[in-house]
Amino acid sequence: MSREIPYKTYLTEKEAPRTWLNLKAFMKEQHDPFLNPATGKPCAPEELEAVFCKECVKQELNSADKEIEIPDGIRNFYKTFRPSPLVRAYFLEKALGTPAHIYYKFEGNNTSGSHKLNSAAAQAYYAKQQGLKSITTETGAGQWGTALSMAAAFYGLDLKVYMVKVSSEQKPYRKEVMRTYGAEVIPSPSDTTAAGRKILEEFPGTGGSLGCAIAEAVEAAVTTPDCKYVLGSVLDHVLLHQSIIGVESKLALDKYGENPDIIVGCIGGGSNFGGLIAPFMADRLQGKNNTKFIGVEPASCPSLTRGKYAYDFCDSAKITPLAKMYTLGCDFMPSPNHAGGLRYHGMSPIISKLYHDGYINAVSVEQTKVFDAAIAFAKCEGILPAPESSHAIRVAMDEALKCKQTGEEKVILFGLTGTGYFDLAAYKAYNDGTMTDYVPSDEALQKSFAALPKV
Amino acid sequence: MSREIPYKTYLTEKEAPRTWLNLKAFMKEQHDPFLNPATGKPCAPEELEAVFCKECVKQELNSADKEIEIPDGIRNFYKTFRPSPLVRAYFLEKALGTPAHIYYKFEGNNTSGSHKLNSAAAQAYYAKQQGLKSITTETGAGQWGTALSMAAAFYGLDLKVYMVKVSSEQKPYRKEVMRTYGAEVIPSPSDTTAAGRKILEEFPGTGGSLGCAIAEAVEAAVTTPDCKYVLGSVLDHVLLHQSIIGVESKLALDKYGENPDIIVGCIGGGSNFGGLIAPFMADRLQGKNNTKFIGVEPASCPSLTRGKYAYDFCDSAKITPLAKMYTLGCDFMPSPNHAGGLRYHGMSPIISKLYHDGYINAVSVEQTKVFDAAIAFAKCEGILPAPESSHAIRVAMDEALKCKQTGEEKVILFGLTGTGYFDLAAYKAYNDGTMTDYVPSDEALQKSFAALPKV
Repeated sequence: MSREIPYKTYLTEKEAPRTWLNLKAFMKEQHDPFLNPATGKPCAPEELEAVFCKECVKQELNSADKEIEIPDGIRNFYKTFRPSPLVRAYFLEKALGTPAHIYYKFEGNNTSGSHKLNSAAAQAYYAKQQGLKSITTETGAGQWGTALSMAAAFYGLDLKVYMVKVSSEQKPYRKEVMRTYGAEVIPSPSDTTAAGRKILEEFPGTGGSLGCAIAEAVEAAVTTPDCKYVLGSVLDHVLLHQSIIGVESKLALDKYGENPDIIVGCIGGGSNFGGLIAPFMADRLQGKNNTKFIGVEPASCPSLTRGKYAYDFCDSAKITPLAKMYTLGCDFMPSPNHAGGLRYHGMSPIISKLYHDGYINAVSVEQTKVFDAAIAFAKCEGILPAPESSHAIRVAMDEALKCKQTGEEKVILFGLTGTGYFDLAAYKAYNDGTMTDYVPSDEALQKSFAALPKV
Repeated sequence: MSREIPYKTYLTEKEAPRTWLNLKAFMKEQHDPFLNPATGKPCAPEELEAVFCKECVKQELNSADKEIEIPDGIRNFYKTFRPSPLVRAYFLEKALGTPAHIYYKFEGNNTSGSHKLNSAAAQAYYAKQQGLKSITTETGAGQWGTALSMAAAFYGLDLKVYMVKVSSEQKPYRKEVMRTYGAEVIPSPSDTTAAGRKILEEFPGTGGSLGCAIAEAVEAAVTTPDCKYVLGSVLDHVLLHQSIIGVESKLALDKYGENPDIIVGCIGGGSNFGGLIAPFMADRLQGKNNTKFIGVEPASCPSLTRGKYAYDFCDSAKITPLAKMYTLGCDFMPSPNHAGGLRYHGMSPIISKLYHDGYINAVSVEQTKVFDAAIAFAKCEGILPAPESSHAIRVAMDEALKCKQTGEEKVILFGLTGTGYFDLAAYKAYNDGTMTDYVPSDEALQKSFAALPKV
């Protein structure tokens, strides 16, 4: 093991970043604005402020400031789970026999188990600062709901989480974590909102959907005094908060004079990848590096590699503004056999724009290969990775194996976004040999594209 | 927040300890030796080596060397999950309004979720060095089995885990983590051993017991070539490995010139508490400090506070040597409503001896009060604690509240041994208001004591 670069690097409290990096301020062209689906016109700030906190809307629309100060109140909470470690994967390098230097930034060392807490902290803080009493959100598998319940507890806010009903039944313990932090968890559809009651009337036995849970959470927010709605991915302000991942990574790598040749991240809504690449992409846009950025998506939900760059709804209930993004169509659902997360139909408008302009590469991988990589990684590096994160592990390993062929000592950085504690049903399927792969047909995608809104 | 002492302190790789601390070498009197129950005579090293690895037996019987070198092979694996953070609990202090300085050493930031990995790493390494092909162990709730499967995967050893059958059915995902790391998990009782077959014949529908699982694991080890048995608590060599917790804590506290007035840890078998206090107790035994050491046990399983100091079997199957320790009797079982772990009938012989000689204080607490503390802690410090660890949180909070009364700025250090991810059924009971307390009656304990072996 090299004597020079330690296995794990934690920044000290004094070294911890005091600002987020606003990637948009480095882009020559901005992505197209959100549109109000009723009017087809760009959303005014007031329209967004009816749903979201003021400061978040301000950040959403800010493409001028390169750095945004992280308030002390957020930096305090960050201290409980950040800085996260940057790890030199010596044991993985050795197992692969590669000359590449592999690094990963591990965001799973907090009770929510993922990077989601970075933005939950910021959004809950701003809600409190605005004088709100409560916030609402939806959650599917429960990672985001857990993160937000931790943040709401820390800042002293009430929180209602609309949790997709089938998920709340299949994952009762996820619900219990949220309750332990004081959140009210409501299986959706519920009779607490008009949207929920309507769905229950039409489909009495339904297990719910993320689209319905979003509709309920937004309705609850706009009909409750001193309450706003909070979203965990896709939006520009979420990517801003997640830039802490990349800023810390760069500070740590700079200590060792290491510049990534390749940065790999998994992409679902794009918040983790957008956060990880932020400072490196900012440099790239200024011609300061020649880093290759690779977003990895599941072959069963290939929004960048096979989607359309078009305006679409952000949710399947079609209540949100329209976003210009790579999308599979808002009704697209990955096959039920898909176990690896990253099942969002669209993609962050910032990531979509950068991909469209040729700054980002994307690849898709099948899930059995993803789990092969996950298990090889777990055995030599100790951490049981989330299936989502394992998409990045897969491609980082593939790139490192190319280096073994060519003898190149490339520096590879990947994002390890979370732990696999709550995905053990998927690991069981893999261990039992019952996991299968799935790739949607061209016909299915064409059908889905045909339903895109006409703008 | 103080500018001087950071919220979290990680030792750097260069600062990480190179030796374990052998507390026994500082004790004026040693605990009584293990006895062979058949002969009533002290166990010879060869008898122990029939079951355990040679190096572990050597460590078990070593009361001469004050420091034992940690081999590079173990220090390498330690790098994947150590050093663990020492946290100044500023947010808990603020929530309590106490002038006390509260610190905790958090051992849950690894995939096994607890401190158990410290000894699993060492024991798997020594098994590999001895040229063994495989190891066996038993596990109840699964924490120890998970830790050992991670270590076995890292060093390339086969591992058989005999998991209490009812536990393997109630916690299928725990089993899945072990399988993911390549362990063979066998629900116990099984037909793979004579001990298991005998139990199955007598009690066809049994859900198993830890005693039976130990018997199966030991039988499998002694009847398989190149295979030994590995145990996760109680024994002196396990406490030796766990001393890494205390040694790191002391190095970090020394940086800030802080000397603990009070050290609090939960006690089940005693491995975590013994490890945490090791260097501080060594100083105490040399008259270098006046620290108060408090072991916290559940009121429903009060081995130190209400047990007898006597020779007893280490397991309920009565196949192990006899140990002189505080015990409730090897057939003692805490009430089924007991959710907080720490359900071992006995106590580490080292801890028992130190308690008997007046160097350690012990208190017992009821579980609803333990969960009150757990939730208060989770909300302000972020981490969802294991119920076991929450026994220490409870008493650390109580001591800090005493300081609030007296105005004393005492330094309190407690051990946060693990996370509560796999204990959410207990949190659910608490959240639902269905958790109750239980204290065994004097009559029940007297009955249990009557069955102690006559030595």
